[in-house]
Amino acid sequence: MISTDLLIIGAGPTGLFAVFEAGLLKLKCHLIDALPQPGGQLTELYPKKPIFDIPGYPAINAGDLVDNLMEQIKQFQPGFTLGETAEIINKLEDGTFEVISNKGTVHHAKAVAIAGGLGTFEPRKPLLENIEKFEENGVEYFVKEPEHFRNKKIVIAGGGDSALDWAIFLSDVASEVTLIHRRNEFRGALDSVEKVQALKDAGKINLITPAEVVALKGDSHISAISIKSNDEIIDIETDFFIPLFGLTPKLGAIANWGLEIEKNAIKVNNALDYQTNIDGIYAIGDVNTYPGKLKLILCGFHEATLMCQSVYNRINPGKKYVLKYTTVSGVDGFDGTRKEAEKAVVMKID
Amino acid sequence: MISTDLLIIGAGPTGLFAVFEAGLLKLKCHLIDALPQPGGQLTELYPKKPIFDIPGYPAINAGDLVDNLMEQIKQFQPGFTLGETAEIINKLEDGTFEVISNKGTVHHAKAVAIAGGLGTFEPRKPLLENIEKFEENGVEYFVKEPEHFRNKKIVIAGGGDSALDWAIFLSDVASEVTLIHRRNEFRGALDSVEKVQALKDAGKINLITPAEVVALKGDSHISAISIKSNDEIIDIETDFFIPLFGLTPKLGAIANWGLEIEKNAIKVNNALDYQTNIDGIYAIGDVNTYPGKLKLILCGFHEATLMCQSVYNRINPGKKYVLKYTTVSGVDGFDGTRKEAEKAVVMKID
Ligand SMILES: Cc1cc2nc3c(=O)[nH]c(=O)nc-3n(C[C@H](O)[C@H](O)[C@H](O)COP(=O)(O)OP(=O)(O)OC[C@H]3O[C@@H](n4cnc5c(N)ncnc54)[C@H](O)[C@@H]3O)c2cc1C
Ligand SMILES: Cc1cc2nc3c(=O)[nH]c(=O)nc-3n(C[C@H](O)[C@H](O)[C@H](O)COP(=O)(O)OP(=O)(O)OC[C@H]3O[C@@H](n4cnc5c(N)ncnc54)[C@H](O)[C@@H]3O)c2cc1C
Repeated sequence: MISTDLLIIGAGPTGLFAVFEAGLLKLKCHLIDALPQPGGQLTELYPKKPIFDIPGYPAINAGDLVDNLMEQIKQFQPGFTLGETAEIINKLEDGTFEVISNKGTVHHAKAVAIAGGLGTFEPRKPLLENIEKFEENGVEYFVKEPEHFRNKKIVIAGGGDSALDWAIFLSDVASEVTLIHRRNEFRGALDSVEKVQALKDAGKINLITPAEVVALKGDSHISAISIKSNDEIIDIETDFFIPLFGLTPKLGAIANWGLEIEKNAIKVNNALDYQTNIDGIYAIGDVNTYPGKLKLILCGFHEATLMCQSVYNRINPGKKYVLKYTTVSGVDGFDGTRKEAEKAVVMKID
Repeated sequence: MISTDLLIIGAGPTGLFAVFEAGLLKLKCHLIDALPQPGGQLTELYPKKPIFDIPGYPAINAGDLVDNLMEQIKQFQPGFTLGETAEIINKLEDGTFEVISNKGTVHHAKAVAIAGGLGTFEPRKPLLENIEKFEENGVEYFVKEPEHFRNKKIVIAGGGDSALDWAIFLSDVASEVTLIHRRNEFRGALDSVEKVQALKDAGKINLITPAEVVALKGDSHISAISIKSNDEIIDIETDFFIPLFGLTPKLGAIANWGLEIEKNAIKVNNALDYQTNIDGIYAIGDVNTYPGKLKLILCGFHEATLMCQSVYNRINPGKKYVLKYTTVSGVDGFDGTRKEAEKAVVMKID
C-alpha cells in the first residue's frame, strides 16, 4: 500500500505544481495518472507546440514546461503510479482516504486533490464488430512501449500527427509497417509528412490510401486485417493493428464518487480553497468549475497553491502557518537539498 | 489626456501580466507607477535575487522575470506613466473613470485595476529637525538619475545593499563620495562589500564609521552636514545628502478612494472577478485581500486573468467571449506582429 499526505489524481501541470506548493508546506505527495508519463494534455496532445500565456514565458513548448515542472518538484520526491486509473475512493472513519486503481493498487492519503483535467484520454475506436475481442490481443490504441513491436508486422491507421510520427518511429523497429488512411491527404507537421513520403519511397513504409479497415481476422490473436481500398477488399497479414484516430477525454469513474458535477466538471468552493462538496477532497485545474472558471494552465497553478494551504490546515489543525517567500527562506527539499538566495554578508570595512 | 480601455495602477508583476491577458481580449492598457521603472517589489527590492516558486521556473532572478514579462507584453503596446503616483479618482457619469496623478497627469479609462502591491515605497527618513526644508534642495531618498550628481560632492548614509551599490556606482560620477554608517559592519552582497573596501583603499570613497548625521546645514540648498563619530562632531561640506535607510510601503491616497479596506489591503470579490465594492474598480495582486489570500506573484497572475474577463464583459456588454488557447489561435499583437504555433500541413503522400 502506498501512503502519503496528499494524493493527487492527475499528473498534468496542475497536479505537478501542487507537489511543489505542498512540499513548501512539508507535505508529501503521490500522483496517479492513467497515462504512462506525466504532463497531462501537454505531453499527450501537444508536446512540441508553443504556449504563449504562461506568465513570464513569452513562449514555451508544452513539453519543455512539463520538463521544467518536473525539475522544479523533484526535490520533493513525489511518488508516481503511472498507467493506472483511479477508480474507487473510500473515505475512512478517521477522515483519511483510500483510493484504488483499475489495477488494484491501493493508495492511502490524508487528503485527495483531483487534478484530472478533462478526464482520462479514451481512444476513438473504429467501428468494427469484433474489435473488443482483440483489444489485449493485437489491437493497441496507444504506443506505450515501442519495443513491444520489435520485428513484428504492424498496421497503423490514421491521418494525423500520431499516425505519421509512430509510422516513422516504428519503421526502424517493426519488421513491416503499413500505414493506411481513408484519404490521400495527411494532416500534420510538414517535416513528418515529408519523412513518411521518403520512407514510403524507400520501401520502408507500405502506404495504402484511400483505405478503410473493414474486418479484423484471427483466432485468439489478430493475424490479418481486411481493408477496402478503391472498392477492392485486400487482406493484410499483421501481428498488430494500431488505430490512431485521436483521443477524447472522459471524466470516467470520478463522475460516480458523489461529487457535485456541473458541465462535466467538479464544482468547488472557489471563494476559499477549491474543496469539493466532500470534505477533504479538492479539485483543481481543468477538472473543476466555478463562476468565471477559465480552463487555463496558469489558473490551475493558483488553485493548487490555495488548495495546499487548506490541506496543510487540515493535516495540522491549530498550527499557524506563516507565509514564507522562497527568495527569503529558501527551499528545503525532502532529498536533503537546499536552494537559497546568496546570503548577505555582515562585514567590517576598515 | 491619456485615454485607454483599462488603466492599471501599479506596474509590478501583476499589473504587467494583466496587460497580456487584456491584450488577448483586445483591450488596451496604460500603467501608472510611482517608481521610475516597472517591476514593483521585484525591481525595487530584490532584482538580483532568485525566486523559486514561479511555476515552470525552478529558479529565476526577480529582475529577469520582470524582463520576461515586459517582453511578453510588448506586442500589446502598453502605455506607461512612470514616476507618478495615482492620487485622485473620479467616476464619471457614463461609468468611466478619470485618474489624476500627483503631477497632474489625467488618465481616462473604461475600467481601473489597482495592482498597487503593498503601496508606494516611502523612504525611511532620518530624524533630523530641518530635513524637510532640504528635501528638494540637496536631500535625496532615491537615486533616480545618477547624472544629477556628476561632479558634485555627495554624502551617502546607510549600511545595506543600496548604500553600498550607489556608493560604488557614484564613485565614478560624483567628485567626492562619503559613505557613513552608524556601525563598522555593512550588510550586503559579499561582492559589494569587497568593492567598497577596495574603493576606500584606493581613496575613491571616503568612509566614516561608526557615525551618525546630527545636523544639516545650508541656506536654500544644503551645503554641509554635521556628523557625530566617536563622540566627536565633524562637519563635511557636501552638495547632496542621500540617506538610504530602506523603504516602507504605504497604501497612500488609494486608502481614501472609498474602497473597503481590511488589513491595509482592498477587499475584493474573489468568488468572481476580483472587483472591489466600487463597480468598475478591480484590485489584483498583493494589494487585495480575501479569505485565504496569499501575497504571492503567481496568485496575482491568476487574479489578473479572471479580472480581465470581467473587464471585457463590462466593456463589451452582451458580446459572448469564447476562450481561445494561445497555442491554437496564436497571439495577435497590437503592433501587427503575430505569434503562432507552426501550422499543420494537409498534404498528399504518393
Ligand atoms: C491543443 C491544446 C492547446 C492548448 N493551449 C493552451 C494554452 O495555450 N494555454 C493554456 O493555458 N492552456 C492551453 N490548453 C489547455 C491546457 O492544456 C489545460 O488547461 C491543462 O492541461 C490543464 O491541466 P490539468 O493538470 O488541470 O489537466 P490535464 O493536463 O488534462 O491533466 C489531467 C491528467 O489527469 C489524468 N486523469 C484524469 N482522470 C484520471 C483518473 N481517474 N485516474 C488517473 N488519471 C486520471 C489524465 O490522464 C491527465 O494526464 C491547451 C489544450 C490543448 C488540447
Ligand atoms: C524580499 C522579497 C522576496 C520575495 N520573494 C517572493 C517569492 O519568492 N515568491 C513570491 O511569489 N513572492 C515573493 N515576494 C512577494 C512578491 O514580490 C509580491 O507578491 C509581488 O511583488 C506582488 O506583485 P504586485 O504586482 O501585486 O505588487 P508590487 O510588486 O508591490 O507592485 C506594485 C506597484 O504599484 C505601485 N503603486 C502602488 N500604489 C501606487 C499609486 N497610488 N500610484 C502609482 N503607483 C503605485 C508601486 O510603486 C509598485 O511598483 C517577495 C517580496 C520581497 C520583498
